[in-house]
Amino acid sequence: MSIALVIPDRKLDQLQQKLQQQLPGVAIEIWPDVQEPEAVTMAVLWRQPPGCLSQMSNLKALQSFGAGVDNILIDPTLPDLPLARIVDPMLTQSMLQYLQGVVQHYQLRLDEFSAQQRKQIWKARSPRKLQFICVLGLGELGQAVASHFAGLGFVVSGWSASQKTLAGVQCFAGETAFSDAVGDADLVICLLPLTALTENLLDQQRMALLKPGVILVNVARGAIVDDLALLQNLDSGHIAAACLDVFRTEPLPTEHPFWQHPAILLTPHISAVTNADTAVAQIAENYRRSLAGLPLLNLVCQQRGY
Amino acid sequence: MSIALVIPDRKLDQLQQKLQQQLPGVAIEIWPDVQEPEAVTMAVLWRQPPGCLSQMSNLKALQSFGAGVDNILIDPTLPDLPLARIVDPMLTQSMLQYLQGVVQHYQLRLDEFSAQQRKQIWKARSPRKLQFICVLGLGELGQAVASHFAGLGFVVSGWSASQKTLAGVQCFAGETAFSDAVGDADLVICLLPLTALTENLLDQQRMALLKPGVILVNVARGAIVDDLALLQNLDSGHIAAACLDVFRTEPLPTEHPFWQHPAILLTPHISAVTNADTAVAQIAENYRRSLAGLPLLNLVCQQRGY
Repeated sequence: MSIALVIPDRKLDQLQQKLQQQLPGVAIEIWPDVQEPEAVTMAVLWRQPPGCLSQMSNLKALQSFGAGVDNILIDPTLPDLPLARIVDPMLTQSMLQYLQGVVQHYQLRLDEFSAQQRKQIWKARSPRKLQFICVLGLGELGQAVASHFAGLGFVVSGWSASQKTLAGVQCFAGETAFSDAVGDADLVICLLPLTALTENLLDQQRMALLKPGVILVNVARGAIVDDLALLQNLDSGHIAAACLDVFRTEPLPTEHPFWQHPAILLTPHISAVTNADTAVAQIAENYRRSLAGLPLLNLVCQQRGY
Repeated sequence: MSIALVIPDRKLDQLQQKLQQQLPGVAIEIWPDVQEPEAVTMAVLWRQPPGCLSQMSNLKALQSFGAGVDNILIDPTLPDLPLARIVDPMLTQSMLQYLQGVVQHYQLRLDEFSAQQRKQIWKARSPRKLQFICVLGLGELGQAVASHFAGLGFVVSGWSASQKTLAGVQCFAGETAFSDAVGDADLVICLLPLTALTENLLDQQRMALLKPGVILVNVARGAIVDDLALLQNLDSGHIAAACLDVFRTEPLPTEHPFWQHPAILLTPHISAVTNADTAVAQIAENYRRSLAGLPLLNLVCQQRGY
C-alpha cells in the first residue's frame, strides 16, 4: 500500500519527507515515477493531467493538495472515489492578513498616492470611505472573512448559492438576491468556488449591478471574472480599482493587459498558501481513515463541486 | 478683544465660521487683513512669516494650529508668550491607521509585488517577517504608536530624549542608547519632534546603526532625515525601503530624487491631519483660559521645542 503525489511542476522532496515521517513504512511515490501503480491506495492531487491515475487500479481515496478542487474535478477521467480537500486554519489567517492589508491599502489611497508619485503630483486626500464590504461566497474562507470585517466595524453583506446565517453579516442567497447583496458595497471580495455555475459569474451584466466607484478584490479563481468586462469597467471608471491575486491562466501570460493596467494591483496568487505541515497532517490522517474504512475529513461533494 | 488666524496659503472661512460659533461676540480676523491689530489677544499660528505679529501689541497667548510647533518656533521675532499646541485624539487615530496600513503594505510585500507587476514578473513570496518595530520619539503620538504595535504582538522598542516608561515597550533614552534601541528593528518609525537637536538626526552615521534590510518610515518632519544619506542607503540596500510622508520642503519639489526612487513610497503629508472640530474646540477653550488668566491647555516648552 502506498501514496502517490500527483502534483506536476513542483518540488516535492520536502512533502515526501514529511509525509514519510508521519507514515513510516508507507511508500510515498512521486508521479510520474510511480514504481508500483497497483499498490497506490491514495492519490494526492493538484492539477493532475487527465489519465494519469489509470494504472492505479486499487485507489480508495483522493486528496486535494489545496483548499480548492476545481483543478481536480476538471479531469474527465477522474475516478468516482471519495475526494477530500485541505482545510487549513493557517490558510484562513493568511487570507485574513492579505485582505486586511488590501482593504487598508485602498482606505489609505496608497493606490492613488503611488499613481501620483509616478506623475510627481502632490495632492493630499483624506482616507477613502470604505464602509460597506460584500463577500461573494460564504464557504469556510468567505465566512471567516465576512465575520472578520464585521468584527472590525464594517457593514458586511454576504452572498452564496445556499442561504447561510452568520452573526453580524447580512446574508443573501441565489441569483435574484445578487443585486441586493452587492448594491451598496464599496468593496466586493470574491471568494466563490469555481464551478460550472460560477465561471464568468462576474460578467458585464453583474458588474453593472455594482455601485459606481466600487473596488473589486478577487482571491478565489480567475475564471469567475470575465477579464474583458473587468477591463471595460475599469476603463469607464465604473469599477474604481481591482486587486487580483488569481487569474484564468497562472502565471499570468506576459501579453495579458492586466499587467500594465493602472487601476489593477496584481499579486502572484499569494493570498492563501497551504501550510505544508497542516497539509501533511491531514493527508496522513485521511490515509489512515481510508485504510480503516472511516469517512475522510473535509470531504468534497463532487456533484456540487466544493 | 479678538483672535487673529495667521495661517498663510490656506482657505480659512470654515475655520473662522466654526470659531465664531464657539465664541460669539469675539472678532475672528484673518491675517494679513487684520483690521485692529492692537485688539488681538490670541494668535493662531502655522508657518507664520517673521514679523507678522509686531503690531499685535496686546497679545496674551499663542496657539499652534497643529500638533507640531517647529514651524512656529523657527520665527526669531516670536514674542515670548505662552504657546499651546493642538492635541487631537482623532489625529492619533489617523496616525495609527496610516502606520498600520503601511506596516501591512510591507508585510504583504505590496511594494515588491507592485515593482514585479511593472516588470511583468510572476514570483510568489511569503510575507515579510516584520517582528521588531522601533519608534523614535515617545511623545503623545510616539507612545500611542508604540503601545498600539506592542498590543498587536510586535516586539517594540522606543527611543526618546528623556527616559520614558511604557507597558510592553522597551524604552531607551539618550544618544548612547540609540544603537541598542534600533539595532534589532525590522522597521523604524520616526515620530521625533523637529528641534535643533533632532535636525539631521538620521544621518549617515546613525543609519549605519540600523539593521541591514530595515524599513524606515518618517511621519515626523522631513528635516530629521538626511536626504542624501537616505538615498545612498536605499541604493546600497542597507535600508530596503522607505515610506515618507514628510519632507524638508513641502510640497516636495518636482526635481527631488525621492519622487522617482523605486524603494520609496511617498505620501503627501496625510498621516495625521488635524481635525477642524477638535482644533476649534481647543482654540476656543484656550482663548477663554487666556482671558481668565488660567494656564493654557497643551502648553509647549519653548526652550525644549515641544
